[in-house]
Amino acid sequence: MRILLLLLTPVLVASTAAADEGMWLFNDLPVELLKQRHGFEPSAAWSEHLMRASVRFNSGGSGSFISSSGLVLTNHHVGADTLHKLSTADRNLMENGFLAAAADAELKAPDLELSQLISIRDVTDEVQAAVSAGTSTAAAATARRAVIARLEKSATETGRLRGQVVTLYGGARYHLYQYRLYSDVRLVWAPETAIAFFGGDADNFEYPRYCLDACIFRVWEDGQPATTPDFLRWSADGPQENDVVFVSGNPARTSRIQTVAALSHQRDHALPATLDRLRRYEILLQQYGLRGTEQARRARDELFSIQNSRKARLGMLAGLQDPRVMQIKTTAEQELLQAVRQDPELRQLAGAWDKVAATASERAQHSSGIPSIRSTLLRRALQLLQLAEEDQKPDEERLPEFSDASRASLEQQLFSDAPIYADLEQVLLAEWISELLEARGADDPLCIEVLDGLSGAERAAAAISSSRLSDPAVRRELASSGLQTLQQSADPLLKIAALLNPEIRRDRESEDAFAEQDRQAYAAIAEAGFAVRGTSVYPDATFTLRLSFGPVSGYKQNGETIPAWTTIGGAWKHQQQHAGQTDYSLPASWQQAHDKLNLQTPFNFVCTADIIGGNSGSPVVNREGELVGLIFDGNIQSLPGNYIYTDRQARAVSVHSSAIREALRVVYRANRIVEELGR
Amino acid sequence: MRILLLLLTPVLVASTAAADEGMWLFNDLPVELLKQRHGFEPSAAWSEHLMRASVRFNSGGSGSFISSSGLVLTNHHVGADTLHKLSTADRNLMENGFLAAAADAELKAPDLELSQLISIRDVTDEVQAAVSAGTSTAAAATARRAVIARLEKSATETGRLRGQVVTLYGGARYHLYQYRLYSDVRLVWAPETAIAFFGGDADNFEYPRYCLDACIFRVWEDGQPATTPDFLRWSADGPQENDVVFVSGNPARTSRIQTVAALSHQRDHALPATLDRLRRYEILLQQYGLRGTEQARRARDELFSIQNSRKARLGMLAGLQDPRVMQIKTTAEQELLQAVRQDPELRQLAGAWDKVAATASERAQHSSGIPSIRSTLLRRALQLLQLAEEDQKPDEERLPEFSDASRASLEQQLFSDAPIYADLEQVLLAEWISELLEARGADDPLCIEVLDGLSGAERAAAAISSSRLSDPAVRRELASSGLQTLQQSADPLLKIAALLNPEIRRDRESEDAFAEQDRQAYAAIAEAGFAVRGTSVYPDATFTLRLSFGPVSGYKQNGETIPAWTTIGGAWKHQQQHAGQTDYSLPASWQQAHDKLNLQTPFNFVCTADIIGGNSGSPVVNREGELVGLIFDGNIQSLPGNYIYTDRQARAVSVHSSAIREALRVVYRANRIVEELGR
Repeated sequence: MRILLLLLTPVLVASTAAADEGMWLFNDLPVELLKQRHGFEPSAAWSEHLMRASVRFNSGGSGSFISSSGLVLTNHHVGADTLHKLSTADRNLMENGFLAAAADAELKAPDLELSQLISIRDVTDEVQAAVSAGTSTAAAATARRAVIARLEKSATETGRLRGQVVTLYGGARYHLYQYRLYSDVRLVWAPETAIAFFGGDADNFEYPRYCLDACIFRVWEDGQPATTPDFLRWSADGPQENDVVFVSGNPARTSRIQTVAALSHQRDHALPATLDRLRRYEILLQQYGLRGTEQARRARDELFSIQNSRKARLGMLAGLQDPRVMQIKTTAEQELLQAVRQDPELRQLAGAWDKVAATASERAQHSSGIPSIRSTLLRRALQLLQLAEEDQKPDEERLPEFSDASRASLEQQLFSDAPIYADLEQVLLAEWISELLEARGADDPLCIEVLDGLSGAERAAAAISSSRLSDPAVRRELASSGLQTLQQSADPLLKIAALLNPEIRRDRESEDAFAEQDRQAYAAIAEAGFAVRGTSVYPDATFTLRLSFGPVSGYKQNGETIPAWTTIGGAWKHQQQHAGQTDYSLPASWQQAHDKLNLQTPFNFVCTADIIGGNSGSPVVNREGELVGLIFDGNIQSLPGNYIYTDRQARAVSVHSSAIREALRVVYRANRIVEELGR
Repeated sequence: MRILLLLLTPVLVASTAAADEGMWLFNDLPVELLKQRHGFEPSAAWSEHLMRASVRFNSGGSGSFISSSGLVLTNHHVGADTLHKLSTADRNLMENGFLAAAADAELKAPDLELSQLISIRDVTDEVQAAVSAGTSTAAAATARRAVIARLEKSATETGRLRGQVVTLYGGARYHLYQYRLYSDVRLVWAPETAIAFFGGDADNFEYPRYCLDACIFRVWEDGQPATTPDFLRWSADGPQENDVVFVSGNPARTSRIQTVAALSHQRDHALPATLDRLRRYEILLQQYGLRGTEQARRARDELFSIQNSRKARLGMLAGLQDPRVMQIKTTAEQELLQAVRQDPELRQLAGAWDKVAATASERAQHSSGIPSIRSTLLRRALQLLQLAEEDQKPDEERLPEFSDASRASLEQQLFSDAPIYADLEQVLLAEWISELLEARGADDPLCIEVLDGLSGAERAAAAISSSRLSDPAVRRELASSGLQTLQQSADPLLKIAALLNPEIRRDRESEDAFAEQDRQAYAAIAEAGFAVRGTSVYPDATFTLRLSFGPVSGYKQNGETIPAWTTIGGAWKHQQQHAGQTDYSLPASWQQAHDKLNLQTPFNFVCTADIIGGNSGSPVVNREGELVGLIFDGNIQSLPGNYIYTDRQARAVSVHSSAIREALRVVYRANRIVEELGR
């Protein structure tokens, strides 16, 4: 995306730049840019503190320490995975919320892991040195995997520290990140979904909003609340309009570096296929949820996640299908290519664009058609089998998720005692079988073996009901039983996993080779960009810590001015405007607190910071590094941001820090928490 | 499907047959079979009366006359299209139901047309004579279309009678049907959707059920209720368990004659693609409905129809994906093929199976990728353009829907004053543009022309808001303005239609050629079946009148006995069992009537009659020809019936006639109607 940076936001050539594009690396912050645009020079201490106050959730989001005793603030929708796993038919934390009256009432999450980034080292030279010029793609992938495994292991201390090599700029740079891990994470407070997700799927990715999309966890160590000296203090009032604010979080993935050929492939093939699959599971889970209120509860979290993805991807597709967006990408690519071709030293890089195009079209032809597995139990069966296989290899040769550096995290998932619902598993497995039959044709030998003479629904019912894998103790026992035991097991899910495994491994191998081809090509494209346009650019998002920033600022839409923030009182008006619609009823706790609440308190606000999925739960801070907000969404206009940043209408949406404090104090009377904030 | 008839239900070789398979032609009823199995010999008068008491709805269902003054009974979900079109934001007939207090309060449907079959003539020889052996496929299709147009015109009297040539046995037989048309159809009574569709999408295609899926229209002529001497009298008590009952209705389509190659194509390609498209529009309409209660009302009817199709097709796909179903089809096909190959006189027919396979795979490659149009206004634009083009040709050369025989029906649709909602049209058009871009790739020149430099959403908004086609008077004026005016029109929808038209016409031409190839091949396959297995077989469903029959009979499911009928009192238990779920609340009218209702009244019942979509609204009669029920659904096990009939668990689901009368009398106090029934 550095290719486009100059074109869209000429910040590096002119100080009159209009936009605050960028998801910046903490070890390469745009100091000059911040000074020019916002008169702000972040000190090393400022950024180090913010980095260490930020955490990543393994369930796919961001968060921050907000007290010295391990309190962590994130979104309700980031915590939802845990809220769901901690809920039962009789204790519905999603619907009713939760507040721990005392520290010993905080609820331990079954499999939540938080990572705090503590150091970054550039290891590009070491990684690139491992791959000699002229090596075959497969050999290059193997060599790269080996050096990365060694580097990661060097920074890992089981259960406490984890090393991770991050591929940046599409493959032009490699950094070794060291994380402090927290795997004893406990739920402290969560509001009701009715207010956390007020307006439901209809309001998701929309603005104005009125959502208390927040919840609070605490990290524990050795049976005590952990000591977390780097935490964010609460701002007294939050930001004013046009104040610049800073977002520290883990944007998961952007594709701004992608070539026009790769984007066209996304637009015409990959995204439409993903959307078909998302809609398929959305309908399936809706149908399952129609069976009864308990089934609706069981499906709720996964259904939300699918609906969220569906809406996000529709926005991305709309961006790519807009001819003006593609025109901008095409022009920028042609300009860069022309500069490359005219420069004798760069000329040899020009082939990279063709390589990307070739890889995109080859990729589709090499898939086995085995769809990604949605049944948790079948996924566990495959993990057990592959774990036993990988354990027979040295660390460097293993698939990365089975490496020593990843082992503790893998086992936390594999042996989690989060509930698994047999009826839901059946439905998911039956649908997956149907997908498999569609993808490969039902006459395919693998399909026939999987069905074993039954219909898909009967096969799924038989396999789930007679498998023993839903018991974590059984999984733990099987994990140490060795490959032969697993291969000879009569467990029907292990048998299905064994049928699939050879082709899934072949898929993985070819995907690794294609990824290596892409890495080599994009590394060349990035180097071309550095040479032509300079190196003060940020890499695409990689679900690692980045800093974004921009002013708090409303926008115009269909002739209307959309204000920069909403108020708590506005939630009641919003409820009234949507009378008769589901998901627009404020919960009883709020109705009761109405008269005591300061209705003028800012509720949600927007800023132009450059964010994307994964940033959910990111703290928003002011120049003083004080917490002023909590990112929870982007508006619909921000979704093409996967490919291209604009600040005309695209906005990041946050819960205002004052609204969180007001709700904690007045609605939830969470005095214990309020007192601990900022201490 | 005659191929399979003997194999699955050996009724013609053994009187111990277990099943009542068959959707029989009224001019070729299985008299011998009925006598053997049920000791019943339908007289010519019995069947003629039943045929003339039956009607077909152009909105896609069946019905029957139930008084001598034109009262017509059908399903609420068949009438829903009209209920929706007659509703506004302030008058929601779907939600609140309707009862006309007097004849002059009956509400005229905007575009409903009922067809009463009055005669059948075998015209096979005339149609086949028009196609000489050795003619090219395209020439054969043209010649066949011409002779069919002539025959249809000979039986048509504009506005009163319509001729229709029906292709039977896949192309082995052609019958000329003459219909009496009723185009002044008025709504008399409809219950609330809450009871008509009690249990909603969750209960759809399930059993036991508790639905009053009924409504009543009246046909008018010359400003008076029409005189309809052939009508069904109401049975005093309805059927007992194991009584044989008869269903007279219009099953829309079955594919039982299809070869294994064609079914595999359905299973692995066509059905999955259709399901993707259905889910796509289901999510789209759900999302649109989330905008507000009025939007939910606007989308309701179309959303129901899509959900209904989605569930039906999932059941069909589950049937084809069941290896045992395909094994039965394969064995039957191989047996017939073997018999054909061994018989010197039949041997030349054996190539037909390969032709079907070739056509199925060719078809997919010849499509322009233009998706079927969901925006009513864009569809109207295309119709106007094609109408002007077709009018320049003689009747015999026109596309069938523009022939003289079809003209009155076409104009009723084209000039209908049913409401068209601009916001919904925008959403549907934008989604269709997105589909078009996905199908053809967004760089395709047609896509670029359609977008005209805008995003799909912007293009749709601009086109819908500035088109004048939503005014029926404008459409009427344009329809008589001539081709040149239409081609030069600045109306954006006519411009888009003009862009699409050439390719849509090419699609149509190749589809006509493929259909002709299929007709020739299936005619040969059917003749082979006649020769090997006899001619006492029924043809696949063609949305024309058929007679089905079978006993009222419960079944076993997961070890449970499912009773043959439910009672009105059971609806309250069902409501209680589903407390907290949407679509399980009995309407206020029923709650109020509870104490006055006879709770023992049978509500819904099941029988083994062979039905499929299109049979909705079919009368169910007893041996005396009295009305005992109203078909409204098949259970989930009946859905593979598109390919294969079984009576183990597959059942047709009806509203019991006594429940309709009890509700009319007690809940709706519709004395005017109750008194008219059977008079």
